[in-house]
Amino acid sequence: MNFKLELERRLNEINNILEGYLPKEEGLYKTLIMAMNYSMTAGGKRIRPMLMLETFRLFNGRDFDLLHPFMVAIEMIHTYSLVHDDLPALDNDEFRRGRKTTHIEYGEAMAILAGDGLLTLAFDTAAGAYERVDGSSLDAINTYKRIMRAYKLLSTKAGIHGMIGGQVIDIEFVGKAVTKERLDTMYLLKTGALFEASMMIGAILAGANDEEIDIISKLAADIGLAFQIRDDILDVTSSDTVLGKPVHSDEKNDKPTYVALMDLEQAKNEVATVTDRARKAYDALPYQNEFLKELIIMLISREK
Amino acid sequence: MNFKLELERRLNEINNILEGYLPKEEGLYKTLIMAMNYSMTAGGKRIRPMLMLETFRLFNGRDFDLLHPFMVAIEMIHTYSLVHDDLPALDNDEFRRGRKTTHIEYGEAMAILAGDGLLTLAFDTAAGAYERVDGSSLDAINTYKRIMRAYKLLSTKAGIHGMIGGQVIDIEFVGKAVTKERLDTMYLLKTGALFEASMMIGAILAGANDEEIDIISKLAADIGLAFQIRDDILDVTSSDTVLGKPVHSDEKNDKPTYVALMDLEQAKNEVATVTDRARKAYDALPYQNEFLKELIIMLISREK
Repeated sequence: MNFKLELERRLNEINNILEGYLPKEEGLYKTLIMAMNYSMTAGGKRIRPMLMLETFRLFNGRDFDLLHPFMVAIEMIHTYSLVHDDLPALDNDEFRRGRKTTHIEYGEAMAILAGDGLLTLAFDTAAGAYERVDGSSLDAINTYKRIMRAYKLLSTKAGIHGMIGGQVIDIEFVGKAVTKERLDTMYLLKTGALFEASMMIGAILAGANDEEIDIISKLAADIGLAFQIRDDILDVTSSDTVLGKPVHSDEKNDKPTYVALMDLEQAKNEVATVTDRARKAYDALPYQNEFLKELIIMLISREK
Repeated sequence: MNFKLELERRLNEINNILEGYLPKEEGLYKTLIMAMNYSMTAGGKRIRPMLMLETFRLFNGRDFDLLHPFMVAIEMIHTYSLVHDDLPALDNDEFRRGRKTTHIEYGEAMAILAGDGLLTLAFDTAAGAYERVDGSSLDAINTYKRIMRAYKLLSTKAGIHGMIGGQVIDIEFVGKAVTKERLDTMYLLKTGALFEASMMIGAILAGANDEEIDIISKLAADIGLAFQIRDDILDVTSSDTVLGKPVHSDEKNDKPTYVALMDLEQAKNEVATVTDRARKAYDALPYQNEFLKELIIMLISREK
């Protein structure tokens, strides 16, 4: 398998799916929709929908019509969180992925409402999955149950005891010395929660059993944690051009990180430990998806 | 029926239900949860959950366990919209219902995240309804379908083609002369959409048929419209003390209103016309709920 070529193919596949779900830029509130689509098409890596899709494939999921709305939903939730995070009252970032942030391009009021719009549209899109079920099929009741379980998981992991909780801790920790344990809690919520939702929803909709979903949940949490420690390392070792955003921003913003807590080598060892645990969990699964395995390795050892 | 006494009883009933669903103020993101609960307990009139509950009763709904999560969800959505609307970048209001607004009390970053938290928790709470269904009952599949239809409606009416669209039009219209038709569009989205969601979800979960749900949808839109025109009138005729917020704010903020568009008597006639249409629609329904009828009249002819 040529991983780079396959990655490119998947990225195109996902971008095509997303495009089909973006709202039309028309009507009295056209500017709002333009602001939403501006942030959705800013060239993201589509990690979350990709993890969802490949976990669905890992468990031999068949009905992609039910999966697509959830892939779109998770990317909308991730995107809204970036739009709100970039606001002046929060991180006050003017650039992301090499482009002006939404509030710089459309103003602060529109950025707040565009974020609200994306979050609501995420749940609306996911909720639309049920309309695609053949209600007369023998298995309809189980399909409905899986959709509702996925819908519940999406909101829980995106919510106050998930991603939003992580963002709040992130703010509260600024300028404070924190323990590794607390930093892990923040990372597991801020990044891990949506990774978990992505992979667990892929598994649930494919019909995985509870034991398998539990393994996937732990695997996803570890990937999120390693991904975030890697982020800390890159903020110190990379360059603005490679990252597409300013490096050394954590130090500038007085944010606690793994690199502030220990030296670079130790931080890299932490990534290796978590990676090793994730690899063992993955190998214990009764199915294989070579692309997913490579994707996980890439997320953890990425250079940007 | 003593309407005032019954209204008080319902308000207590709803406040008790809401209280049972508020998140606990604990943990690393305690401040966020305090900010969310601060806005949820600011003494709202609970119009939306009340309309939902009474429409459910109108159609002889039985399973209140399925209804309660949706009552809480609609109030959380209404509340988040107020928290974000009050932000400096939007209406920049410092007081609401006689108390400091959330961003004045907790800061802007926390107000943005508290709004996001409430919106996400709304969908999470509603999503929890499915866990209360006895999956082995003969009618389970129909109950699941009703719940999913209610989810979809909740997110659609709260979204860009519903409430959020209305908020954007509201911003876009500032300082402009608009037609009555456009003003109606804005009101039907900004206020009407959540009124529709409230009453339609009450009807759907009670098992009303499509024709009945359609009548309820139009009735709710009219109540929303009349409610909003009434708001325009009160902004001119009431006092700060009675309203709990500054009067003459529409003129100050250069917002188009019915009162700017026509004289006060004409505006009152418009309310009367819409009210008349709503009353006829209500009377055509094969069921009766005297309290709901009085509630609708109160919403339209309210003095605060």
